[in-house]
Amino acid sequence: MLKVTFGVANSLDNYIAREDGAVDWILGGEEANSAMTELWKNIDAVVIGRKTYEPVLKSGTPFPTYLGVKNYVLSRTLKESPDKNVKIIREDAAEFIRTLKTEEGKGIFVMGGGLLAKPLFEANLIDELRVSIHPVLLGSGIPLYHEMSHQIDLELIKCKSFKNGCVSITYRVKSRGV
Amino acid sequence: MLKVTFGVANSLDNYIAREDGAVDWILGGEEANSAMTELWKNIDAVVIGRKTYEPVLKSGTPFPTYLGVKNYVLSRTLKESPDKNVKIIREDAAEFIRTLKTEEGKGIFVMGGGLLAKPLFEANLIDELRVSIHPVLLGSGIPLYHEMSHQIDLELIKCKSFKNGCVSITYRVKSRGV
Repeated sequence: MLKVTFGVANSLDNYIAREDGAVDWILGGEEANSAMTELWKNIDAVVIGRKTYEPVLKSGTPFPTYLGVKNYVLSRTLKESPDKNVKIIREDAAEFIRTLKTEEGKGIFVMGGGLLAKPLFEANLIDELRVSIHPVLLGSGIPLYHEMSHQIDLELIKCKSFKNGCVSITYRVKSRGV
Repeated sequence: MLKVTFGVANSLDNYIAREDGAVDWILGGEEANSAMTELWKNIDAVVIGRKTYEPVLKSGTPFPTYLGVKNYVLSRTLKESPDKNVKIIREDAAEFIRTLKTEEGKGIFVMGGGLLAKPLFEANLIDELRVSIHPVLLGSGIPLYHEMSHQIDLELIKCKSFKNGCVSITYRVKSRGV
């Protein structure tokens, strides 16, 4: 079974974007880049939510097309992507990820907000959680975590603070045997 | 002006307690104890909210009476505490802390939930924020952060991971010149 890593940048008060979707508060830097480079070594499929993808599409940025990586966008409403390297997935997120996990490959990286995280956590499909906690309380915005049907226990794998004030934490999601 | 430190243990999804107030998921250990011992060196006043204090009072634990430290409980409804070392404060939390900051002493440690944190952050009265992020997504509970009137910028001061899986992060709250 392929490992599924859910990765996200969040504010300390757990927003992934301002109320209007703005992510101007997200910090970059060499350390963040090198952490991502390290991550990509074990990833060959990227799955993102529509709400994460659309702003990217509008901006004209080629993201999330990574060379040599399968790119999937989860959406019931989008038509084909103008980018031939991006495949639109209309089926249920949890069902799609469940099937993708059984395929051959290296690993799956899921990027998205709370509406994508919730069903995947509840279905026990996320093996690893990587958060990049930014040094800010936004005060309001689009939340990362929604209420869930049950508690998810985590095991701290790695914690690193960056010069830009971000704290990057990797957790293993403890299996609940479901 | 005395430094005000707001300290809290939270789940990764930013709850401070389960919906029924339970904090059975909070982890202890030598590292947590020694971090607190270090903190107490610069503290001589402790201010806690009523909702944090009442469960303690019912349990019969002598907490939060620390020797040589002034103990204040913020509450409009509580009468005098049966513990003569605890003073009940009926005035507005922000007003009380604002006055306390101007007194002689070492430092002020505030413990409480989101309903206490929000007005203190909004009034720019918190100088330092210490969170002990626990390795769990509770899924539901009593939230730490409530929506606030404005963004609060933080400066990462210290980040340490503990053997029990907690990540202890200290931030300096950047002054907004108010």
